[in-house]
Amino acid sequence: MIKIETCLTPEILHLHQLEGKIAVVTDVLRATSCMVAGLNAGVKSVIPVKKVEEALTYAAKGYVTAGERGGVKVEEFTIGNSPYEHMEEAYHGKSICMTTTNGTVAIDAARKSADQVVIGALLNVSSIGRYIKEQQKDVIIICAGWKGNPSLEDTLFAGALVDQLKEEVEITDDATYMALSQYQSAKNNLSEVIQNHASHAKRLSGLKAQNDLAFCATEDYCDVLPILNGDEITIK
Amino acid sequence: MIKIETCLTPEILHLHQLEGKIAVVTDVLRATSCMVAGLNAGVKSVIPVKKVEEALTYAAKGYVTAGERGGVKVEEFTIGNSPYEHMEEAYHGKSICMTTTNGTVAIDAARKSADQVVIGALLNVSSIGRYIKEQQKDVIIICAGWKGNPSLEDTLFAGALVDQLKEEVEITDDATYMALSQYQSAKNNLSEVIQNHASHAKRLSGLKAQNDLAFCATEDYCDVLPILNGDEITIK
Repeated sequence: MIKIETCLTPEILHLHQLEGKIAVVTDVLRATSCMVAGLNAGVKSVIPVKKVEEALTYAAKGYVTAGERGGVKVEEFTIGNSPYEHMEEAYHGKSICMTTTNGTVAIDAARKSADQVVIGALLNVSSIGRYIKEQQKDVIIICAGWKGNPSLEDTLFAGALVDQLKEEVEITDDATYMALSQYQSAKNNLSEVIQNHASHAKRLSGLKAQNDLAFCATEDYCDVLPILNGDEITIK
Repeated sequence: MIKIETCLTPEILHLHQLEGKIAVVTDVLRATSCMVAGLNAGVKSVIPVKKVEEALTYAAKGYVTAGERGGVKVEEFTIGNSPYEHMEEAYHGKSICMTTTNGTVAIDAARKSADQVVIGALLNVSSIGRYIKEQQKDVIIICAGWKGNPSLEDTLFAGALVDQLKEEVEITDDATYMALSQYQSAKNNLSEVIQNHASHAKRLSGLKAQNDLAFCATEDYCDVLPILNGDEITIK
């Protein structure tokens, strides 16, 4: 039976063993939602980097750059951290180098020892579920959280994924059980719960951000499986 | 309005500011349940220490010693980590020096900067709630967890406390909201949820441990407020 565990924040990732496991990294608001939506729309690949300076070296080589610090677009970058920007036709067929406060940090932590790193969001949660059932490997869900603290929306993603797999996995830690029951009590009004209770939702204001929030809370908007190969995330 | 936040594991306590706040430390299975039950029964005070060696220096001075490592009683100690042991008449009027894998570590982390450190368990959750309403100070709930990871039973305590205070507090982080909704969906069968889903419950086996589990899951068994004064926890 597949074993599944959840790391609610990268701050405690050192307590988990990643070797031999599929790491599913999520940052629902909004890094991994951008990646999933962009790749689904036609973006060729996403190159996640930890630092703004690294992204700027990609910019110098002509890459599209994307991302934020503290929720605000980095001035020099082409685009920010709204999934709608990542879906624009101008970037179809292009590679986007991306860095964010939490999401790309989590990917970087995962890639060091996990067997595979796949990119999850509520937008593609069923694709991830199907892939794990095919692979039959142990799984760790890594929630990006917010500056080291657990976040509601990422925990809900973890719960949504576990809910799909619950007949076929052994839950090995309390965080996974808690994520599952959190999701089960919120699943009928996921968008409302995130908009009303996620502290990150309160940090995002304005009409554009409201649209982003509603979009990122959509389960199974698309059917893509973004996976990290070397330095690039592409659709499998 | 009182602000309330929750730290799901001491591993991320450095992300929280404790200054000026009441820190409510909990380790439901079983350190803080032992303290609450023992003090309620007649124990004079509990001296929490981080290390076994420190406890042994208290033993040499004639103190009762209590605690565990990895869930197992430390051989040289008078008693282990079962609340029933802490309630025995032999220890009424005595001071118990205690060290445990998670609970006393959390207390030690809290005492360094919090304004007050109070000891919470499901057993005395309403007393804690009333005290916070009286004090009107901001609160951080510190869950001891298990070896750095969040634990279900401590998160449920956090949720139970927030549930009591929800009309009078402002929830400032996602962990607190998640603890509250976790508790609200489990409150009608708290003992069952802990016994069936807490990974710590699976680590405790045998009839004695089953009795401990059921006891520690009892809300409002008693009405005491243990508070740290200097090195000693006594009833306020």
